[in-house]
Amino acid sequence: MRLSRYFLPVLKETPGEAAIVSHQLMLRAGMIKQQSAGIYSWLPLGLKVLNKIAAVVREEQDRSGALEILMPTVQGADLWRESSRYDAYGAEMLRITDRHDRELLFGPTAEEVVTDIFRTHVRSYRDLPLNLYNIQWKFRDEIRPRFGVMRGREFLMKDAYSFDLDEAGARDAYRKMFIAYLRTFQRLGLRAVPMRADTGPIGGDLSHEFIILAPTGESGVFYDAAYEETDWQGSAISFDNTDEARTGREAAVNDFIKAYAATDEMHDQARFEAEVPAERRREGRGIEVGHIFFFGTKYSEPMGAKVTGPDGKDVKVQMGSYGIGVSRLVGGIIEASHDDAGIIWPDAVAPFGVGIINLKPGDAAADAACQQAYDALDKAGRDPLYDDTSERAGAKFATMDLIGIPKQLIIGPRGLAAGVVELKDRRSGERRELSLDAALAELGA
Amino acid sequence: MRLSRYFLPVLKETPGEAAIVSHQLMLRAGMIKQQSAGIYSWLPLGLKVLNKIAAVVREEQDRSGALEILMPTVQGADLWRESSRYDAYGAEMLRITDRHDRELLFGPTAEEVVTDIFRTHVRSYRDLPLNLYNIQWKFRDEIRPRFGVMRGREFLMKDAYSFDLDEAGARDAYRKMFIAYLRTFQRLGLRAVPMRADTGPIGGDLSHEFIILAPTGESGVFYDAAYEETDWQGSAISFDNTDEARTGREAAVNDFIKAYAATDEMHDQARFEAEVPAERRREGRGIEVGHIFFFGTKYSEPMGAKVTGPDGKDVKVQMGSYGIGVSRLVGGIIEASHDDAGIIWPDAVAPFGVGIINLKPGDAAADAACQQAYDALDKAGRDPLYDDTSERAGAKFATMDLIGIPKQLIIGPRGLAAGVVELKDRRSGERRELSLDAALAELGA
Repeated sequence: MRLSRYFLPVLKETPGEAAIVSHQLMLRAGMIKQQSAGIYSWLPLGLKVLNKIAAVVREEQDRSGALEILMPTVQGADLWRESSRYDAYGAEMLRITDRHDRELLFGPTAEEVVTDIFRTHVRSYRDLPLNLYNIQWKFRDEIRPRFGVMRGREFLMKDAYSFDLDEAGARDAYRKMFIAYLRTFQRLGLRAVPMRADTGPIGGDLSHEFIILAPTGESGVFYDAAYEETDWQGSAISFDNTDEARTGREAAVNDFIKAYAATDEMHDQARFEAEVPAERRREGRGIEVGHIFFFGTKYSEPMGAKVTGPDGKDVKVQMGSYGIGVSRLVGGIIEASHDDAGIIWPDAVAPFGVGIINLKPGDAAADAACQQAYDALDKAGRDPLYDDTSERAGAKFATMDLIGIPKQLIIGPRGLAAGVVELKDRRSGERRELSLDAALAELGA
Repeated sequence: MRLSRYFLPVLKETPGEAAIVSHQLMLRAGMIKQQSAGIYSWLPLGLKVLNKIAAVVREEQDRSGALEILMPTVQGADLWRESSRYDAYGAEMLRITDRHDRELLFGPTAEEVVTDIFRTHVRSYRDLPLNLYNIQWKFRDEIRPRFGVMRGREFLMKDAYSFDLDEAGARDAYRKMFIAYLRTFQRLGLRAVPMRADTGPIGGDLSHEFIILAPTGESGVFYDAAYEETDWQGSAISFDNTDEARTGREAAVNDFIKAYAATDEMHDQARFEAEVPAERRREGRGIEVGHIFFFGTKYSEPMGAKVTGPDGKDVKVQMGSYGIGVSRLVGGIIEASHDDAGIIWPDAVAPFGVGIINLKPGDAAADAACQQAYDALDKAGRDPLYDDTSERAGAKFATMDLIGIPKQLIIGPRGLAAGVVELKDRRSGERRELSLDAALAELGA
């Protein structure tokens, strides 16, 4: 993309309404625009990042065997009466009345809708296990929306729902999601620590929150260094439905969560010091980006979601639900990865792979070299952003750093006369002079 | 994907509530489930098709130079008061009140929101032309929702909005979308005929509807065969912002629309016969799937969307808007392409590229050959659906035809003993025996 044809309304000043760094940087980088309290438009740069995060989440859900569907944003009140949550959910539910005075709502979550799909279409234990997920906009009418996309009202959530014949199966489904979440957050360049959690309005008796570490996080976290040391990408854990794979998942999860981890609310310093050797004690701050629940028959019982078991008798299915805050992760990643100059995107979610800065548009040599770099990087799938505008060089450097492009290629007439361009690494700040060909080779083009 | 691990709740009976063939087939093929009147969940097969259509729409919008953003589903009433549409829009607008008694609405379209983005961030004529689009769920509270996704209440729309300094620029933006739409529908395997249309609640004085031809379409259409003869994919029309490209677009569009085309409401049989030679007269039925508008300063004037012109004076921008009914297209394509056995997907939107039918799961040779075919087709990116279930052969054939998989590979022990498999073409119904290797080569694997 050429910057002259793009819509990237960066701001020089930090907007006064933004209280946290991710909100400030998302506004300054032209990623979002507030439309109403807690409701945002995603501008081109913000949408690219949001879609990249969603793609990683989707790939890991698919890998785990979950199947993608898409449930509507507007749901009928009747289903929520069946589960007795319509009145119980309270003021956070956005209630709607249509032209025929029928009661609707903007879904804050979708246990009822997915249970309705299940009871309509699934009849036999042979169709289990089943996990259906969707990535869809939700609405929770927060009394005081704030922190930009971190606590908005309209937000993008990945929500998965598992259905199993018995509790052992449901606990295995829970572990599959547990592992899929750790893989997901690791691919997004985040360190995630799972914590036992309350179940709240979703219900059930088993729940974990996934907290990502960020210096500006909302809560303190205390954990064993073991949580930083597992490579979930290289792991040999299988998502197959064989006994061997199930046993492997159970062992992996149980082994992982036995190490100490607690948020400040639950932290027990004496236990921390007793259980964790000093050199392995880690303290930090964190942000909740995922939450998983096992709740048995809480919805299948009142809504009649059952299958015929192997013995021919009806069985209420055992369920769990599993959420990731996709739009919240955009803010979360920025909280975890930024410096004074702006955002530092992990490669997996960077909106553009390489920035090209033309120091002197109009100069024939600079234009030709930039065009050559652009074509080569574009062809190699590195999705370059080419600053071909007439801004001064300093402003161009500041914008590329603000919007966090991981690699930046700086090309000008003086360098070209000496046979070199400059290659900058956003994270380290390192700048090196080398030939254009060498730079392109290093960038995979 | 193995069918045994997929969620494909096909129905043997045609549901009574479905009055048109696309609605019947989408329910029978397990693509959607109604949740409330005019509100649907998209099951895995339906979602795959919806996403493939959206991807083609997105590629052609991007090619035309439009930039993707994402506006929220919930909008504030205040913006709609600025344009005087809040009261004017009527009962089709789903009005919402939040916990603080603020008036919101579920967006039926987004002229106001995008004009607000524009006026906040764009200051100079140098930033024009600009076209921002999004693919987002909309809600129109139809008094009598029907025909499945063809006239639902919650529906997926691609809506683009162009901003130009003057009317000539805006008319060029209109032509860019005109051409992009013809390219889009052609890629989707559809014949589209543009028709002059009323502007309705969007406003303005220039508008075209895009009607796709389908034997079961809602309205009659009369047109010159010229509309079937232009290849918009191979066309040399450029989307560049040069004078030469603009002149080319104007000539191409004007040349294209000079031929006769009218829906039955506007049809003039005498003119049709006078203008179109008998052998070039075409009559058919059609479905509206796109609608484009030029409306000048209808929104920029009341909402104060202006830029500084080349002479330093403020200019109200000239705008247009451009919609494609993405979810409606799923139904529209089925109306245009089906037979008694079910759906016939065009290759561009087929949910799976190849179906594999194992005639005797459990037979070692059949299992091995199917697995070999599956691995090869998967690796070649042909996205196979492998029916590995224990259903009887007839039911397997019926399901593959019902869900419209373009190419089907039928593998069983008897054929393998003779060194052959069967390759079936869904559209022609042709079945041929050939070796597995030859079949895979023909399928690009």
